[in-house]
Amino acid sequence: MEKPQAAPRPGGRAARIQAAVFKAVDELKQAGEELTVPAIAARAGVTPSTIYRRWGTLADLLSDVAVRHLRPDGEPTDSGDWRADLRLWLEQYAEEMASEPGRAMMRDVLSADRAANACTCSAYTGQQLDVIRQRALARGDTPPETAVLMDRVIAPVIYRILFTHEGADGDYVAGLVEGVLGEG
Amino acid sequence: MEKPQAAPRPGGRAARIQAAVFKAVDELKQAGEELTVPAIAARAGVTPSTIYRRWGTLADLLSDVAVRHLRPDGEPTDSGDWRADLRLWLEQYAEEMASEPGRAMMRDVLSADRAANACTCSAYTGQQLDVIRQRALARGDTPPETAVLMDRVIAPVIYRILFTHEGADGDYVAGLVEGVLGEG
Repeated sequence: MEKPQAAPRPGGRAARIQAAVFKAVDELKQAGEELTVPAIAARAGVTPSTIYRRWGTLADLLSDVAVRHLRPDGEPTDSGDWRADLRLWLEQYAEEMASEPGRAMMRDVLSADRAANACTCSAYTGQQLDVIRQRALARGDTPPETAVLMDRVIAPVIYRILFTHEGADGDYVAGLVEGVLGEG
Repeated sequence: MEKPQAAPRPGGRAARIQAAVFKAVDELKQAGEELTVPAIAARAGVTPSTIYRRWGTLADLLSDVAVRHLRPDGEPTDSGDWRADLRLWLEQYAEEMASEPGRAMMRDVLSADRAANACTCSAYTGQQLDVIRQRALARGDTPPETAVLMDRVIAPVIYRILFTHEGADGDYVAGLVEGVLGEG
């Protein structure tokens, strides 16, 4: 089962090692090279045992790297029209997750035995939806609950991407959003 | 990317090797032993290169084994009341997928670079729902489309299991089913 893992103190030795190892993974991926613990260690300037001690397995390390990339860069666009913002954000989310790097990140997150990482991804998504919802509430509107948006839009999009050939194109996403906003 | 893989001719050499290798994986798992290609090969009485030639990687082999286990044993129960049958089937499906072996199978299916296996799982689910739907139609009823059931019940159940702490308990599943049957 997953090990509880404290975030390293910023600026400390553990944080510097983590940054170097994450950077090494990104660089090797970009170069299309095989991801092995010895290759990552050599690139990061640490010993393989440092990596094994901190992450346990390669899958756990790749899962941590993927979660870091799935962290949102900022808040969803605020155009003044929360419905339009919601549509746009969900469309971009589906596109990003359906892309080859998006699929690879989900695969990395899920293939490790680190349930907390998968939960973190879902929490990021929920937080972004909450931001749009709060803006709608502040304007006296009645947006759907975040949990409803997770069930009715996020879940079917991710299921389609992971388990079907069809994927989640713009029309499909738009249909899901209309389904949930129509009842809002 | 995934290699197209013809099903072996029943009774042929390839089918016998596949059966022996799948059995070896199951036995090693049951014994709680580490799953490595050499250990599987030794147990199955084949050479490791036979396994690499046929499956490419350990992840691909484990994905194929998991898909085989996810194949339904038979048709959903037919009580004469399709709504009750649907509720029961979905409840059992959620329970099975949320169990430790269910999660491990999904992880094995998704962690390999074999999109066809994930699609096969989803197709199995759709076929079971189709059976219940056809019975309802034969009785002159108007059950929800299978695609709607996939979006509104299967997808949120699987998303919850894969990405959240909450899981998909009986009340949650019942709520999803009522949501979709209420509109049927």
